[in-house]
Amino acid sequence: MKQVENDYKEKYPLLSSIDTPQDLKELSMEELMCLSTEIRNYIIDVVSVQQGHLGSNLGVVELTIALHYVFDTPREPLVWDVGHQAYAHKILTGRRDLFLHLREKGGISGFPRIDESVYDSFGTGHSSTSISAALGMAIADAETNPKLSHIAVIGDASIASGMAWEAINHAGTTSANLLIVLNDNAMGIDPATGALSRHLIALSQNSTSGNIYKELGIEYRLLKDGHDLPALIETLKEIKDTPGVKILHTITTKGKGYPAAEEEQILYHYPGTFDRKTGHISHSAPTRYQDVVGESLLDIAIKDDKVYVLTPAMPTSSGLARMMQTLPHRVINTGIAESHTLTLAAGMTVGGLKPFAVVYSTFLQRAYDQIVHDIALQNLPVRMMIDRAGLVGADGATHHGIFDVSYLLPLPNVTICSPMDEEELMGAVDFAYRWDKGPIAVRYPRGDARKDRGEHMMWEIGKGRVLRGGSDICVISSGEIGLEVERAIEMLDDEEKKYVSHYDLRFIKPLDIELLSDAFCKHRVIISIEESLLCGGVGSQIALWGMENGHSDVKVERMGIKDFFPQCGTISQLRMDCGIDVHSIIDRIRVYISYICNENKLN
Amino acid sequence: MKQVENDYKEKYPLLSSIDTPQDLKELSMEELMCLSTEIRNYIIDVVSVQQGHLGSNLGVVELTIALHYVFDTPREPLVWDVGHQAYAHKILTGRRDLFLHLREKGGISGFPRIDESVYDSFGTGHSSTSISAALGMAIADAETNPKLSHIAVIGDASIASGMAWEAINHAGTTSANLLIVLNDNAMGIDPATGALSRHLIALSQNSTSGNIYKELGIEYRLLKDGHDLPALIETLKEIKDTPGVKILHTITTKGKGYPAAEEEQILYHYPGTFDRKTGHISHSAPTRYQDVVGESLLDIAIKDDKVYVLTPAMPTSSGLARMMQTLPHRVINTGIAESHTLTLAAGMTVGGLKPFAVVYSTFLQRAYDQIVHDIALQNLPVRMMIDRAGLVGADGATHHGIFDVSYLLPLPNVTICSPMDEEELMGAVDFAYRWDKGPIAVRYPRGDARKDRGEHMMWEIGKGRVLRGGSDICVISSGEIGLEVERAIEMLDDEEKKYVSHYDLRFIKPLDIELLSDAFCKHRVIISIEESLLCGGVGSQIALWGMENGHSDVKVERMGIKDFFPQCGTISQLRMDCGIDVHSIIDRIRVYISYICNENKLN
Repeated sequence: MKQVENDYKEKYPLLSSIDTPQDLKELSMEELMCLSTEIRNYIIDVVSVQQGHLGSNLGVVELTIALHYVFDTPREPLVWDVGHQAYAHKILTGRRDLFLHLREKGGISGFPRIDESVYDSFGTGHSSTSISAALGMAIADAETNPKLSHIAVIGDASIASGMAWEAINHAGTTSANLLIVLNDNAMGIDPATGALSRHLIALSQNSTSGNIYKELGIEYRLLKDGHDLPALIETLKEIKDTPGVKILHTITTKGKGYPAAEEEQILYHYPGTFDRKTGHISHSAPTRYQDVVGESLLDIAIKDDKVYVLTPAMPTSSGLARMMQTLPHRVINTGIAESHTLTLAAGMTVGGLKPFAVVYSTFLQRAYDQIVHDIALQNLPVRMMIDRAGLVGADGATHHGIFDVSYLLPLPNVTICSPMDEEELMGAVDFAYRWDKGPIAVRYPRGDARKDRGEHMMWEIGKGRVLRGGSDICVISSGEIGLEVERAIEMLDDEEKKYVSHYDLRFIKPLDIELLSDAFCKHRVIISIEESLLCGGVGSQIALWGMENGHSDVKVERMGIKDFFPQCGTISQLRMDCGIDVHSIIDRIRVYISYICNENKLN
Repeated sequence: MKQVENDYKEKYPLLSSIDTPQDLKELSMEELMCLSTEIRNYIIDVVSVQQGHLGSNLGVVELTIALHYVFDTPREPLVWDVGHQAYAHKILTGRRDLFLHLREKGGISGFPRIDESVYDSFGTGHSSTSISAALGMAIADAETNPKLSHIAVIGDASIASGMAWEAINHAGTTSANLLIVLNDNAMGIDPATGALSRHLIALSQNSTSGNIYKELGIEYRLLKDGHDLPALIETLKEIKDTPGVKILHTITTKGKGYPAAEEEQILYHYPGTFDRKTGHISHSAPTRYQDVVGESLLDIAIKDDKVYVLTPAMPTSSGLARMMQTLPHRVINTGIAESHTLTLAAGMTVGGLKPFAVVYSTFLQRAYDQIVHDIALQNLPVRMMIDRAGLVGADGATHHGIFDVSYLLPLPNVTICSPMDEEELMGAVDFAYRWDKGPIAVRYPRGDARKDRGEHMMWEIGKGRVLRGGSDICVISSGEIGLEVERAIEMLDDEEKKYVSHYDLRFIKPLDIELLSDAFCKHRVIISIEESLLCGGVGSQIALWGMENGHSDVKVERMGIKDFFPQCGTISQLRMDCGIDVHSIIDRIRVYISYICNENKLN
């Protein structure tokens, strides 16, 4: 980043003069067009080093300039759906220099954040919230400031989601001053899917007389070239004075202006670091946990034609690309539609299939009722593969998968697995395939996995494992944080090590009562650790089990995420923030060793 | 019901010959039409005594006969959306006699249940799941039995929900053999709302050339009179041989054939007991907890024009009818759209309003991600009024509001109130109005409330109250179950009473640490009780607090709902099933008194 900082004024002469959107209004059309080139270059410069979303941001540079040029932001609020396309917006709204610290701890977020800038009218991260939020603001202004516009910018994949539909269905009956900018690049992360997507293509090609938005009572306007800045500005100026709810459907190109990103839109959605000159992506994509799942599922699906994999718009990111090539009709991409996906899976089990629904932990929150009402209550053997469980790093607060344990544990009939490493994950997927007595969830983290994996063990229902035996202190872990426990124990000296046992639960539900009983009987201290919320987590279950089963004399310490939302940073920074990193573990172990050595009372 | 049973054969000569749908196929058209009259009468007879959904069931009698006549159920699965219209279906599928025990413990459910009959292909209760489920079954049959039909019957209010939209958006790209019967009576419980609703009216009147379903690639057919049995049968026979996804849009009348129910569609949606001859509803509707909320909100809204109330399609059932008349533009009926509703509320707070979202506990599950991602993370002061929290009685497993505590407690920034009675509920609503530091939830039960209410106390953040002081055992309750504790203590003899304290938490989060500390210091036994899941509940929080704050010597017993789904029954039967009824409380108190008297070790 140093080089970028040094070359700043020279490389981006126009951009360096823009501190607020107000400054845009002084520029000529020609200057605005030059500015769009500068912004595009600046985004490429920074993202090639910092990592982040590339394609979506390059696609909306002109649109961002036009919106801030025409509207009176932030008085006229602007909500970016998903928010992974808000880089130009951030750069133009006082965060040009901070942008060099994109997605760093202490830097700025990769998504709009309500507490980062007054221009971020509403924080986003998950998809399809923008219309609801902007409509809420429009209703609030309806009586006092009816002329103020309220703008939601939403992509073609996001507008297909149920939540956006609900907002449009409501908005269509109001006279709210709401502008929905449908930024149509025919892509989510992967190519867009679904019937609406087909309809949007027909609309953009004027090849249909019907228009579902018009049928819903919404003004509709098409602007075919969403990169034509003069046309964008002119169109927005016209729309600005149209009362009521309206949609501007504009066609953009994901990756616009950077040939590699235009050509390989999936790859450059989130390319990691790359050489900005050649477009060469520095590291070939490592094997990740989701690839382990994707490979395991492919192996299973080859052997059993009842196995289907469902993904709500995340085939590539969920490690399913190879399966989509090998067994295309066995991977169903449902679009951004988590609610539908889980009930679809329930229906498929009724029909005799074995569906695996692969969903990020944080997005599975969208299907909570479907898990409760359609899956758990009916005890249907839907296999839920919960990707990105735990802390996810630079994507930050909107994306951490830290609630799933707390929201799934109370559900009757649900089995929950939390494997510790790659082989264990393979064992868990294999077990989930074999388990047909009810719903089962396997949670696994974001992150790189070893390529040179060994054979996996056969998992048995509700059975954990003893990883090492010691005399007084038993660390009970679930999930990948167990590797952190292993590292911590490794860093103790030999004398200290003797005190410490390490048990891995494998199953969060049902709990391995035999293993717990063994742990409580043989030790004076139990330290539970989980990369999940403490409240409602498995540590609470362990502590309560001990208390209610005659082990009040054993001290239980629960390590996990306390009552706050972790922000962005590297996984290790975040683990430190949450007090579940290797040093925190060592610290707790040493405190108890010292207690024990000094014969202190523990409870 | 005795009279009905005795008159059976005479009153329903055709119906008594129908044991399975197969028997229908032997009847002439004339007989089928007579049968529909018999079924209608039978439903009115039973529902007038047993209570249940009336209008929706009377509206689909012909449709139900036609579907079972034309299709080969259950090989061709039939999914009833929401399922409150499945009485005729139950009566025709081997449950004619059991129907006399509708919604009783040990009788049959008011909703389809996958474990009640093979004809109930998929259990329902919540809205808008049917298309996803039926599509799942259709995908499962696609290769082996492509000619089998898969049928979802869905109302005009339910099809407007986001989840149904997601399913349609997906279905429109498949060649699944799926029939969506859109049963359009222009009503949910209240008149349908939303832009789609307007479009459906236009479609039914042939007053528009556009058709959103056709635009989504779905075959569409309109049958204007959904009570014309011959036409229904003919149309379904034609559709049966059409491959792919199709919608049959048919217009029915809610309450059809029972004049009172046709005229007063909201009242007879769920009328309670009534005189089947006169239509007279036996009891004038009592004041319920939701009315207390409705009245309190109206009072507040009159004083503060920033206050808005949002209801996802439940204005009448949520006690908001009077407010809708008095301040119509301050009650926003968003339709069946919980996800949108909560984010809309978040947007409204950003715009400076004070929205109260009134949602049943069980339906709030549909907005879980919105609570996490849009409200809690941004710490926006959305007021969530959680109606029907706890056990709901005869509606059964799909409707109990027993997960909200477990799913809300882990969320940072969220305050949760659980008032014990009517005055307390008024105090909680008043507090929620005054609390603007973040999101707040008030949970209150289904049930009757006293009309002669006193003044409410002023609530203070995180402060509970001591209801009575005793020597050794402290019962800590949250919510209305506290009244059950009061009754239990009342039933103890005077000697026993001296042992027992009763504390009411008022706030589930934040916990009143001072009160807890007092309870643990002054007593040897703490009994926590809640009408909610034990796992992740407030009892766990109390027990863990004690354990982690030097009170391991105090015995804590947690009473609440264990790891199962309670079914249907009266509230008192269900509390007994869950072990949280008055006798269970007395029993636990006496066990501990006896321990204490015998100086037994408690832990």
